[in-house]
Amino acid sequence: MDLVIVGSVAFDSIKTPFGYAERVLGGSATYCSISSSFFCKDVGVVAVVGEDFEEKYFRYFLDRGIDIKGIERKKGKTFFWEGEYTTNFNEALTHKTELNVFKDFNPQLPSEYENCKYLFLANIDPDLQIKVIDKIKNPEFIGLDTMNFWIENKRDSLLKVLERINILFINEGEIKLFTGESNTVLAGKKIIEMGIEKVLIKRGEYGAILMEKDRAFAIPAYLVEKVVDPTGAGDTFAGGFMGYLAATGDFSFENLKNCIISGTVMASFNIEDFSVKKLTSIGFNQVSERINNYLNLIKVDAEKILKQN
Amino acid sequence: MDLVIVGSVAFDSIKTPFGYAERVLGGSATYCSISSSFFCKDVGVVAVVGEDFEEKYFRYFLDRGIDIKGIERKKGKTFFWEGEYTTNFNEALTHKTELNVFKDFNPQLPSEYENCKYLFLANIDPDLQIKVIDKIKNPEFIGLDTMNFWIENKRDSLLKVLERINILFINEGEIKLFTGESNTVLAGKKIIEMGIEKVLIKRGEYGAILMEKDRAFAIPAYLVEKVVDPTGAGDTFAGGFMGYLAATGDFSFENLKNCIISGTVMASFNIEDFSVKKLTSIGFNQVSERINNYLNLIKVDAEKILKQN
Repeated sequence: MDLVIVGSVAFDSIKTPFGYAERVLGGSATYCSISSSFFCKDVGVVAVVGEDFEEKYFRYFLDRGIDIKGIERKKGKTFFWEGEYTTNFNEALTHKTELNVFKDFNPQLPSEYENCKYLFLANIDPDLQIKVIDKIKNPEFIGLDTMNFWIENKRDSLLKVLERINILFINEGEIKLFTGESNTVLAGKKIIEMGIEKVLIKRGEYGAILMEKDRAFAIPAYLVEKVVDPTGAGDTFAGGFMGYLAATGDFSFENLKNCIISGTVMASFNIEDFSVKKLTSIGFNQVSERINNYLNLIKVDAEKILKQN
Repeated sequence: MDLVIVGSVAFDSIKTPFGYAERVLGGSATYCSISSSFFCKDVGVVAVVGEDFEEKYFRYFLDRGIDIKGIERKKGKTFFWEGEYTTNFNEALTHKTELNVFKDFNPQLPSEYENCKYLFLANIDPDLQIKVIDKIKNPEFIGLDTMNFWIENKRDSLLKVLERINILFINEGEIKLFTGESNTVLAGKKIIEMGIEKVLIKRGEYGAILMEKDRAFAIPAYLVEKVVDPTGAGDTFAGGFMGYLAATGDFSFENLKNCIISGTVMASFNIEDFSVKKLTSIGFNQVSERINNYLNLIKVDAEKILKQN
């Protein structure tokens, strides 16, 4: 296995100004793995689902060539989330959270997953994230996501796991909460000083910032005209990032920029429809075409302005 | 005269989390002209001040080689604004606005200004903006800024003046108000459909988007660690943009990107201190150095990702 993704597979009921989707496929590992599969051909998912998770839902993964041996099926019901976006697409109102089988999630890695080179730990309890890392024999690059709840309630565990990863994916509000800095750049610097190798600050519709010691890269998001449902955008971003990284095996700062571009483009597709509808209706041609459009949107001829000055 | 800037010259009292500045030099034409002077050597300002505007304040302009024949001195007091930024640097709380001599501002252009090629109309009554345009003999490129108040109260006049300009500088909230579109990209498209040649959507700390028919360019802002006072950032941006444009005389889409980079870098300096303190303490070397840093921050090697795919 090249890339292993650990997180949630869930059902979501989502309301946005563009409509309502009832009990559709969701979850961090779902969005992330499907997105990564556009770049990496050897992806495995570790998650847990309930008895209500019918065969047809596994097809979403299998159709994209994703290995599902790591998706455990347990007695009980699948994790369910009900939420709503009103005018502000940057923040969801949660109406209902039923953890169900996800409550006692204890990631079970099939033995061949332990040899993976690339690992992405979606937002779960940092103690579980540590357990997973312990099982991987020779990880080459580990990405991790987290959220306010763990920052506030499991800070020590979170700090421990962060020492062992290569890149933290975190949104702008969360990194400010984590560091106590109201300025995003200072918050990023503080995270790096805490010993985290790299941080990817997610700014939603405004793009992302990558920071490591003494280096930074900033990029706007793709311009999307119709945002239907932003659910899973961050995980889709991480999936594109990790998938491109696994496909290239190049950890240079320059190539991480390409990972960000891939993540940005995948996320831009995801938000155009509910659930994984868009991600499962496009092919690599469309991804490639949008990467071109995106590069065109952000292209600067640096030579010229330097000569002018 | 190459570049003429019409707007306000004012006194501001500003409180931010980093301190308080009392009755310091401000106003849209002040920020804009000083910023533009780093690129364009032939800049004139059209504004009005009161008897309390002492000689020493004119030095700020003269020291940067800016022509002040267009700054009328009238009986009464200079425009005064008192405001505060709390944790949100994106929006100011206004405590006091005393229009004073600015209330009856009727822009008086010295005759040599009428031959200017480049004109920037800062945020004033659109009827006055039209009057100024009528006086310019052969304008080659006109930029214009506006605000909520004119969008809501003088929409017809605003629409009239917008037909006659080349680029509208407008912030994200304003363009949504103007067009009734909650999506920024759609708002931009709608503005272009209304017959406005180009629009520059200002997103504050998140950068800017340039749109014209069938083309767009998006860019993040420079990463500033210590934002002391954001007052005048938009006008400083416009100044850098117009100054670079006037210096190069190149209206191509590619060169407008360089104008945006120049504006972005100038604005990043401006917000590092109160009033025009920072802008009047740096030289072109520092501007040039930061342009380099900024290009480095946003640099992407497009060739590589395309080959990979």
